[in-house]
Amino acid sequence: MTDAAQLTADLIRCPSVTPEEGGALILLEKLLSEAGFECVRVDRGEVSNLFARWGAKGHARSFGFNGHTDVVPVGDEAAWTVAPFGAEIRDGVLYGRGATDMKSGVAAFAAAAVDFVRETPPDGAVILAITGDEEGDAIDGTTALLDYMEQAGERMSVCLVGEPTCPNTMGEMMKIGRRGSMSAWFTVTGVQGHSAYPHRARNPLPAMARLMDRLASHELDKGSEHFDASTLAVVTIDTGNPATNVIPAQCSGAVNIRFNDLHSGASLTEWLQAEADRVAEEFGVAIEMKVKVSGESFLTPPGPLSDLVASAVAAETGVTPELSTTGGTSDARFIKDHCPVVEFGLVGRTMHQVDECVPVEQIHQLKAIYGRILRDFFA
Amino acid sequence: MTDAAQLTADLIRCPSVTPEEGGALILLEKLLSEAGFECVRVDRGEVSNLFARWGAKGHARSFGFNGHTDVVPVGDEAAWTVAPFGAEIRDGVLYGRGATDMKSGVAAFAAAAVDFVRETPPDGAVILAITGDEEGDAIDGTTALLDYMEQAGERMSVCLVGEPTCPNTMGEMMKIGRRGSMSAWFTVTGVQGHSAYPHRARNPLPAMARLMDRLASHELDKGSEHFDASTLAVVTIDTGNPATNVIPAQCSGAVNIRFNDLHSGASLTEWLQAEADRVAEEFGVAIEMKVKVSGESFLTPPGPLSDLVASAVAAETGVTPELSTTGGTSDARFIKDHCPVVEFGLVGRTMHQVDECVPVEQIHQLKAIYGRILRDFFA
Ligand SMILES: [Zn+2]
Ligand SMILES: [Zn+2]
Repeated sequence: MTDAAQLTADLIRCPSVTPEEGGALILLEKLLSEAGFECVRVDRGEVSNLFARWGAKGHARSFGFNGHTDVVPVGDEAAWTVAPFGAEIRDGVLYGRGATDMKSGVAAFAAAAVDFVRETPPDGAVILAITGDEEGDAIDGTTALLDYMEQAGERMSVCLVGEPTCPNTMGEMMKIGRRGSMSAWFTVTGVQGHSAYPHRARNPLPAMARLMDRLASHELDKGSEHFDASTLAVVTIDTGNPATNVIPAQCSGAVNIRFNDLHSGASLTEWLQAEADRVAEEFGVAIEMKVKVSGESFLTPPGPLSDLVASAVAAETGVTPELSTTGGTSDARFIKDHCPVVEFGLVGRTMHQVDECVPVEQIHQLKAIYGRILRDFFA
Repeated sequence: MTDAAQLTADLIRCPSVTPEEGGALILLEKLLSEAGFECVRVDRGEVSNLFARWGAKGHARSFGFNGHTDVVPVGDEAAWTVAPFGAEIRDGVLYGRGATDMKSGVAAFAAAAVDFVRETPPDGAVILAITGDEEGDAIDGTTALLDYMEQAGERMSVCLVGEPTCPNTMGEMMKIGRRGSMSAWFTVTGVQGHSAYPHRARNPLPAMARLMDRLASHELDKGSEHFDASTLAVVTIDTGNPATNVIPAQCSGAVNIRFNDLHSGASLTEWLQAEADRVAEEFGVAIEMKVKVSGESFLTPPGPLSDLVASAVAAETGVTPELSTTGGTSDARFIKDHCPVVEFGLVGRTMHQVDECVPVEQIHQLKAIYGRILRDFFA
């Protein structure tokens, strides 16, 4: 029996702040290799990733798991009451950066998978796609693993992402989708002038105020069957003009949109452009727009995969998880183009915080859930 | 006969960038003392000012002149085709910083006044209140001179300010008033949060956008008998948030208002506060406002003083000047509380610019106008 809590502690002691590998993937590779997994390091740019498969390549019955060993920086180290990479246990709680997000998730699945293939070798494949770049730009992380798999003829029938998904109580929530995320930057250009002669200038600021007011007041939707309403947040407006007698020539602003399956990055870009064009015409200014779509929304509709996970969670915890699409983005946004994907992990309350921690018992429980999912999948 | 063009050139050679005296007031003091003016240096803070009176103190018939010898900085010296303090004459045009704003105006009046009291000593007083702080904060300039006069029992029956007032052609415009000027700074405070969870944050930016949109769209008035419409310019909005996944806690913005005699600093402050309060309530944010009134509007209604100046201008130039209240602020805003005040000077087109210059002939013409005003006033 592989001790998932011990493995989590060992991983916490690897200081793998993005993009540092920190020894975490080396540790996993050793454990998985010894259990018969074929391991390939898929490094790209300054990022390290690990692909591991037990069983036949390209098997039609391949269960995939995705997670990350990189962690966010420690932050204000003086505010921690423990060593951030010390993996200290106090009153049954394991402390350290990555304790919930998500070295415990990776350890729980690796331990469950190793025990599973040893005890009841399945007719199929078990795959772990572990990245070292989830907390960073995520350009050379899970994407690199998926590119590698595509090229190497590797495939997953389904994929489970092990990010923390429960807000407060173990088992209460899993994710079957995520909203998309995009940002747009606007630069409004007018004509500089003197505040005493505004008719000789063309002030970009009233145009920016009108545009941001319109964007912020617009109701994108009221939510859809599986999603909350889409939201738009104005995140900044900047001018940098210290002189009250000067009308500035230019100002900039940005919005961030979290959108459900009623929209796409393209449809929202079109809407934003139309609003910008309309304001530009109304005010006689030029408005430039730059857009970055970080991820489209995705949904794995309730079905066999979510049933499999939900019933395992219910069996181990007594709690039936809600099928949610709330929260930020995750690497599931990349995997959704390859196979059905859902997410389940432990309680994420302390993630990214000082004194990040996880009850040891919860790690064992998570390993039990992941083990039951594997057994049920191959049953 | 005192040569006003020569005096202008001598003054230009004094590098009197605010707050430097640069030798300019010393030069004037010498000239005026020799002509029988009583001179007092009224220095306050780091600023130098000169008070000069010919005739009896407190005389009921006292003609006052106000002007400044300080100049704005040279700016991009490489862009000048002449030495900024060289007072070079090319094709009958005198070049240098202060050539139009307003060493020529000061020189023209000083020359006219010296000749006038020598040739036809009036029954009354001629006063020059010359400041070295008009282009700066104007805290220790004309205000200091007026404070001194109050205290010393000095008085002016009327006052002429010699700032450039003509947009293009000599004689076409004089000022009988100026709009008021004020600025207001707003700080909107909400609650910081994550862009993915806007309902847990309280974004100050939509409130700022709405407030600025409302202020900028509001028509303050349509103008009054002697004034153009009041104007409001949004001059800056700033947040400084580089992270699109963060909803900021705070943002700031500022507006500048140029207002006519239908408003006052107090009435506009009340309006701005009401708009801020309304938006604060609509959005559930806190809005702090700070206001600075640089000057109230003022008007010397058409009458004896404007008639006196206008007829002298018409007699010397053949052009009847328009009685205007346009433009920025001037030190007339301080003088208006002491006596009727109007402004007349030459063409200001190159003021504050590179290669600032004035046709020599225009200086002579301005001296002739000022001389005729003095003769007519005491006739
Ligand atoms: Zn994570
Ligand atoms: Zn001036």
